[in-house]
Amino acid sequence: MPRILAITGGVGGAKLALGLSKVLPSDEVMFAVNTGDDFTHFDLHISPDIDSLTYALAQENNLELGWGRQGETWQFIETMEQLGGESWFRLGDKDMALHTRRTQLMQAGASLTEATARITAALGISHRIAPMSDDPVRTIVHTDQGALAFQHYFVRDRCEPKVTGFEFAGLEDASLNPLIGDFLADCGGVIICPSNPFVSVDPLLALPGMRAALERLPVIAVSPIVGGLAIKGPAAKMMAELDMPASATAVARHYQGLISGFVLDSTDAAQASEIPTTTRVTNTIMDTLEDRVTLAQECVSFLGACERSN
Amino acid sequence: MPRILAITGGVGGAKLALGLSKVLPSDEVMFAVNTGDDFTHFDLHISPDIDSLTYALAQENNLELGWGRQGETWQFIETMEQLGGESWFRLGDKDMALHTRRTQLMQAGASLTEATARITAALGISHRIAPMSDDPVRTIVHTDQGALAFQHYFVRDRCEPKVTGFEFAGLEDASLNPLIGDFLADCGGVIICPSNPFVSVDPLLALPGMRAALERLPVIAVSPIVGGLAIKGPAAKMMAELDMPASATAVARHYQGLISGFVLDSTDAAQASEIPTTTRVTNTIMDTLEDRVTLAQECVSFLGACERSN
Repeated sequence: MPRILAITGGVGGAKLALGLSKVLPSDEVMFAVNTGDDFTHFDLHISPDIDSLTYALAQENNLELGWGRQGETWQFIETMEQLGGESWFRLGDKDMALHTRRTQLMQAGASLTEATARITAALGISHRIAPMSDDPVRTIVHTDQGALAFQHYFVRDRCEPKVTGFEFAGLEDASLNPLIGDFLADCGGVIICPSNPFVSVDPLLALPGMRAALERLPVIAVSPIVGGLAIKGPAAKMMAELDMPASATAVARHYQGLISGFVLDSTDAAQASEIPTTTRVTNTIMDTLEDRVTLAQECVSFLGACERSN
Repeated sequence: MPRILAITGGVGGAKLALGLSKVLPSDEVMFAVNTGDDFTHFDLHISPDIDSLTYALAQENNLELGWGRQGETWQFIETMEQLGGESWFRLGDKDMALHTRRTQLMQAGASLTEATARITAALGISHRIAPMSDDPVRTIVHTDQGALAFQHYFVRDRCEPKVTGFEFAGLEDASLNPLIGDFLADCGGVIICPSNPFVSVDPLLALPGMRAALERLPVIAVSPIVGGLAIKGPAAKMMAELDMPASATAVARHYQGLISGFVLDSTDAAQASEIPTTTRVTNTIMDTLEDRVTLAQECVSFLGACERSN
């Protein structure tokens, strides 16, 4: 079985990541995670994409909400609101403990990678979650209302401002996580999970050395756009605002030159012929754990096929 | 009606303070509160006595537990434990928000006094809660197991070490809260609430200028010891370890020279003759709100009598 790097952002990507963790043992897959939407709030280091993946792999993700942790409560943030503090970022009580623990570990000298390893181990996760970098990279969303820190755009302003572009502050000074670099040096291929291309995957691809490392490898991407809509999040809205069609084809074109295979949903089967790479048409909507496992198996098998044709 | 300063520590004193807040309008009583057991935990400024009083005056105190806030939950601290973090200090989820809000306000430049005013106002409290000082004073408990920070002695080690003495670090450089100084300059008398003499009241009395300001005024104290036991907390255990009888009389002697009147429980009526000051014997056990109000009325009336006899 080849060693596979899975690139993922938040909730959407984490569904496929859980599937991959069920079909590949922990030494055969590594999850490389976007940290561009990390931020500091209440003096805590918050890493939303790492946490979404952590909760997903621990099977502790909140199925009712579609984000956050299972069995979550909101006493902290509701009390904060009563006391006149900021409450736009809905920090759950359990989630708060994770951010506090991470911040403590990092203040004691741990890197984000090391803090993540400690926390995921405590939650019983054996697979490796590698933050894309231990250096701060912060996604700035340029909009008709000015430049916005990612969480201001995404949570506080509910993705309402019209997007004009993106910037990854700190990128030039950031190094790719050596864990990822080392893994890629002995890797059979890469799966880009169905995450937002602009704010979840691009920050990772933009890291110095990342594209060069990927060029030697078979890379497949799974479309986060199905039937012209994003399963979750603002990807489709962003595409429209950036004057791109909100389609699986446009996502495939966005990754052109990088990918050797593209997975799109059966709903979009008609687009397969427009896509400038090998395609696999299948069900990509992952409602159940079985869906996640099935898609993961298909991706691993498709990546193998792309490898052979590469 | 005279203006009264009430000196209080945590839960026991806060019961009488609530009674006083029901019988005196907000411009006629000020609560001077011990901050010697404040500490920093998870990078948050925690002020247990201020918070006990805040929750009591907001009538949000937890009646089941006897400490903390009503309707509290423990998701944060239980998750912290799961993640391998410190969990000996049982921070509730709502309580956590108060500490976070205070820390935020203070990081933005507010004094502890100003932060307390903002928080108590947000909770609908009109009476003034004055931290004894805006400067850090930290109670150190000397024990047979060495010198312990107060919360380590009190919470982590459950008051088990044998006490040999107390130290108030930072006292020499601390100023009495000017709010308290100004109030005392135009004040009819002082009530020492039934709080621990050694670790709740003494730090306040030891502040530079405090004893001198009190000497001109009638001061009464309410015994925190009833029938040889502390209603709450380690006062009686401490007295035994310090080779004092655990009795109301010993408390009155501890305050000798400062107080002109002493309130003791009917249980201890036989001790009244031993006490070297005017006494008032009454029910001091405050189980209900009515008990709190009745004792407050008695104290205000007794303080008036002490004033006349002064």
